Order: sequence, then C-alpha cells, then structure tokens
Amino acid sequence: MRIGIIGTGTVGQTLATKLISLGHEVTLGSRTKDNAAANDWAERSGPGGHAGTFADAAEFGELVINATSGTVSLSAVELAGPERLAGKTLIDVSNPLVFSPDGQVTLDPVNDDSVGERLQRALPDTKVVKTLNTVNNEVMVDPGRVPGPHQLFLAGQDDEAKAQVKALLVEFGWPAEDILDLGGIDAARAVEMLMPFWLRLMRHYGHTDFNYSIRTAG
Amino acid sequence: MRIGIIGTGTVGQTLATKLISLGHEVTLGSRTKDNAAANDWAERSGPGGHAGTFADAAEFGELVINATSGTVSLSAVELAGPERLAGKTLIDVSNPLVFSPDGQVTLDPVNDDSVGERLQRALPDTKVVKTLNTVNNEVMVDPGRVPGPHQLFLAGQDDEAKAQVKALLVEFGWPAEDILDLGGIDAARAVEMLMPFWLRLMRHYGHTDFNYSIRTAG
Repeated sequence: MRIGIIGTGTVGQTLATKLISLGHEVTLGSRTKDNAAANDWAERSGPGGHAGTFADAAEFGELVINATSGTVSLSAVELAGPERLAGKTLIDVSNPLVFSPDGQVTLDPVNDDSVGERLQRALPDTKVVKTLNTVNNEVMVDPGRVPGPHQLFLAGQDDEAKAQVKALLVEFGWPAEDILDLGGIDAARAVEMLMPFWLRLMRHYGHTDFNYSIRTAG
Repeated sequence: MRIGIIGTGTVGQTLATKLISLGHEVTLGSRTKDNAAANDWAERSGPGGHAGTFADAAEFGELVINATSGTVSLSAVELAGPERLAGKTLIDVSNPLVFSPDGQVTLDPVNDDSVGERLQRALPDTKVVKTLNTVNNEVMVDPGRVPGPHQLFLAGQDDEAKAQVKALLVEFGWPAEDILDLGGIDAARAVEMLMPFWLRLMRHYGHTDFNYSIRTAG
C-alpha cells in the first residue's frame, strides 16, 4: 500500500521504517521542503521510501498517518490540504502535550474535545481513526517489547476504516483480539487523556516499554 | 481503627461495610443530620457502625475517607471542618464527573488541577492520599472480582500517610506489590483523568468488573 506520513519526528520515522519493512511504500512529509530528517530517512530506506511536504505525503498516500504533535496537527492537515485527504483513512497517533516551565505536562485540547475530533471536524470527507497514541513509538511497531497480552484502542466514526486500521496494526504485530474498539471519534478524548497517567508510569518504571492490559471478569 | 467516611452514597456505604467487616469502627457522615441512607446503614451494621454529619465523621475518624462526588468534595470538607481533619490522613476516592445533557461525561477540575490537589490546598494540615478512584466500588473492597494481577495507584505528599493507606488497602485484599506510588498529590490529575477511559471500557465490556494491569518489560 502507498502510505503518507505527516510528521518527521521520532514517531513518524519509526512508523515509516516499519511500514517499509512490511513492503509498503511511504512518503514521509515535513512542513518544509528539503527537511534534513525526512531526506536522510528516505535515503536510508531504499526505493520504497520518499521524502516530501505534508501535501506530498497526503497526495501520495492511499492511507495517511498524522504523526505530528497534537498541538500542531490541525495546521499540519490544513497545510497538507483537506482535498488531498478526502475519501481516505487518516490514522491519528498524536497527543496534544503542552510542556510547562514548571515541569507539568498538560493537554490542549482536553476533556470536552480532542485532537481526533478536531481533525474529523476539519476533514469531514476523511475517515479519522485514533489509535497507537497510548504507547511509546517503539512499542507501536513492536508490541512484543512488552510481555504478555496488552491492548491498543480504536476510536472513529467509520467501521470500515477501523477495520482497515486494525488490519494494519495486525501487520505491526498486534494480535487482533488485543485491539479494542472504544466507539466513535469522541472516544479520542478518553485515550488522549491517558497521557498524564502514562507519563507518571514512565517516571515510575524508568522506561517506556510498558502498556495497559485490561483485566476483566467473565 | 476509628474511621470517618464523608459521603453516604454507594461508594461510602461499600467502604463503610467493608471496614466494619474488618473490625474497624466507622461513622458514616452525611451533609444533613438524620440522613436516611446513613441511619439505615448504621442500623444494619451493628455496634461498630454510626451515622452522623460530615463534621461528626471527621471528628470521629483517626483516618477519614472522602467518598463524596468530586464536584462537591471541597464544600463537603469545609462543612466537615478543616480543624477536625488536621493532622489526619484523608483518603480521597472521588472523581469530579460532570454529566452533560448530551450524554458526554467531563471532569471539573481537570488537566492543570484535580480534586486531590484542591483538597490538599484546602487542608494544609491534613495528609491527603488519592487512591481507589480508578475502580468500581465493588472492586475497591474485593479486588478478586477481577482475575489476575491488576493495580491500584497512590498519590500524596506524605510517605507515612501513603504507607498507612497502603496497609489499609492490603486489608481490603490488594496485594502490596500491586499498589503503585505515582508520586505527589499532583499525580491525582493522572488518575482522575483515567475516568473517561474507564467509562468507555465499561461501555465496551458491559460491566464494571475490570481494572488496569500494567505490563512492563524487565
């Protein structure tokens, strides 16, 4: 599949490299043309890996991934061009983290809105699916780093798009039974609001190779 | 131990009944004198169970539990009287849920504040420990309802108070190794912000007998 990735940070590059290794073709899109990180990645990645702008990535992808910081995701998809994303599935893996000088990390938006919902409102002709934002980038593409069963979550309006994303997550190594559908795109609030807890756990364990396993009766 | 419980709802009554069964003496405190729920509970509970006002519960307890809704907890402890809580440990099990007409549930406070922090600021001479708010009331006092290991979390400024609360949680049946200390009372934000996710899981599973097990490498 041809996949466009909006955002050239660690998360974008990690997803891009995994997708290449699975035989997909990827355009890693940056805010500016001739972004060094994107070009370096493309050079390392062989014939299936390309670098371009947000718009290039959106145009290229049959499926597109938003891997920008959640606080700038809206402007990123505006730059990418809503028309280039129309009819496509957009996987949103972002978290809207705001780092304060006092060391506290907060979210914006939060509580009565989420990045997932904002993207869906800005892109009414695109099928936004929120997922993967609840784990570190290395765990995203290698769930076996964390022992035993542990879960990922999906939120989105379109069941076919969620099924498509689930299939891609299974390619990443996530067992289908560990991918929980939490409902419509408004469920993005719930998974984005896990971040403060995730950051506390990171501090507690001293690393990022952990994830949630939901234990349930019956 | 003599324990005061502020709040006569399901959570308060469940905790009160468990504490009586463990041999503690409990005053269940309500906003108004002669609260039917509190009086009925006290009658059912034998000589160790008493009913009274928030102030009676605060005065009675060597340790006190806030089991009111998080949106009214500040006014509840003001009614209880900060001077009656001075020098004591206050376990805060609340969540500040706001139920909207559109069916969405939000939190107030959220993100840059929490009920736990507000209580600690309002009660500078009290040792506030946030815990238990991440599970249903039945699981609080009977963790075996959920199979396998699963965790509880502590947040608070005072290590001795957290150790005291941990010991009480062990009496409830929680294995000591499954009680994670997430840090100061500002970590209350993280655990309160789990509620939207918890509510989504409740909808997904159709029941409340579930909890988080943190899987971690190494």
